[in-house]
Amino acid sequence: MPRLKLTVAYVGTAFAGWQIQAKAPARPRTVQEELEKAVAALTGGHVRVHGAGRTDSGVHAEAQVAHLDLPTPSRPVDWLRAFNALLPQDLSVLAVEKVTEDFHARFSATGKHYAYALWLARCAVPPRLRPFVWECGPLDLPAMEEAALHLIGTHDFASFRNAGTDVETSVRTLRSIQREELSPLHHIWHFQGNGFLKQMVRNLMGLLVSVGRGKTAPAEVPGLLAAQDRTALPSATAPAKGLTLVRVLY
Amino acid sequence: MPRLKLTVAYVGTAFAGWQIQAKAPARPRTVQEELEKAVAALTGGHVRVHGAGRTDSGVHAEAQVAHLDLPTPSRPVDWLRAFNALLPQDLSVLAVEKVTEDFHARFSATGKHYAYALWLARCAVPPRLRPFVWECGPLDLPAMEEAALHLIGTHDFASFRNAGTDVETSVRTLRSIQREELSPLHHIWHFQGNGFLKQMVRNLMGLLVSVGRGKTAPAEVPGLLAAQDRTALPSATAPAKGLTLVRVLY
Repeated sequence: MPRLKLTVAYVGTAFAGWQIQAKAPARPRTVQEELEKAVAALTGGHVRVHGAGRTDSGVHAEAQVAHLDLPTPSRPVDWLRAFNALLPQDLSVLAVEKVTEDFHARFSATGKHYAYALWLARCAVPPRLRPFVWECGPLDLPAMEEAALHLIGTHDFASFRNAGTDVETSVRTLRSIQREELSPLHHIWHFQGNGFLKQMVRNLMGLLVSVGRGKTAPAEVPGLLAAQDRTALPSATAPAKGLTLVRVLY
Repeated sequence: MPRLKLTVAYVGTAFAGWQIQAKAPARPRTVQEELEKAVAALTGGHVRVHGAGRTDSGVHAEAQVAHLDLPTPSRPVDWLRAFNALLPQDLSVLAVEKVTEDFHARFSATGKHYAYALWLARCAVPPRLRPFVWECGPLDLPAMEEAALHLIGTHDFASFRNAGTDVETSVRTLRSIQREELSPLHHIWHFQGNGFLKQMVRNLMGLLVSVGRGKTAPAEVPGLLAAQDRTALPSATAPAKGLTLVRVLY
């Protein structure tokens, strides 16, 4: 059972996220399903594709990682070319590597890097960026950076987890939050950590934007973390379209 | 008649270019028409929007420029907000300025800056870039840069002009051609000049890629220029989707 590691990029706009869903009769379109359809076309049978993690509906990926076990015997295939010939326009396989069976896309991952893109005005966003940024308006950047310092480190992030998962612990290590200024109005906030809870990055960004709008004080952040309760958070979850999974670390 | 200068950005994919077309019954969608529809909704009458130049079907713009004369009297309007509330998702007005009547989007322009994006592989292009790059495969960059040196300067570019216009002269000054490497596979070729003929940038890029593929020698370029005949050019016009109008100079 040769194992393949895939590096996958997608524009999340028209996907109902990573994970295959079972809602009949109208099954929403997912990245995992499109990949499994391509594998089935190439191998002649159903093969499960395991992702490093789920991305939500509308979230993009620059380099998501997945693995799959090929049936044996399997004919020799130029996998990179074959995948890309079959996949839709909003989904590409960027790299295919043969790996040993001790590699697991999810369990071998040591961390993830997400990027959240903001547009610091409420109109006049360049149309090329529109599917990838949150048009949040002007922000108080020093206040946001002060608030971010309270979030970095190892904490119970239960306040930043939306309902719908049953992971055992909500303790995570947020290694860094860094702001990159691509232009005066186009800012990227980078989040790196050992793992992220459901919608955690979008809740972190939502809180930081609330701080940037003067609605939440940086000094309130430690209390919101300590509450360990999503309902304690005064801010909404940031929109999916601004978020991109940049890299999975191994 | 107050005159407004508009700076306009668009994703060209779903536009039949800049210029309004008259083909009934199915009139193709154009940038100029979308802008004139918005102006009509805001002023209550038809007003012509004059562009700095036409862009072809499928070509993008980061900062196209246009002007229009408002009917008088006209009510005070927050033009930037009003335009963007009315325009479709793939077209934005980035700036609106009041200018004097001696400003003309086309005749006042002193030059243009175009960018052409190449992806140096034939598959595995990131889907976010797909609408904006030509997937041309690997290229011999030193040969291309040698060829580009022959193209810079003041020449009769008739060999690089496609049929369909009746401009008086085909002499233009190409001020610079510069390659920017955003990543090993994602290169931007910048073309700056005092003006460009119909599909001239795409024909220049087409020839440079032909050189990069080893099909045309750099030393052939002066002869192709001297021929002053599009049929002398051995290369095809590069695809529209890789081209972006970056800036109009005044």
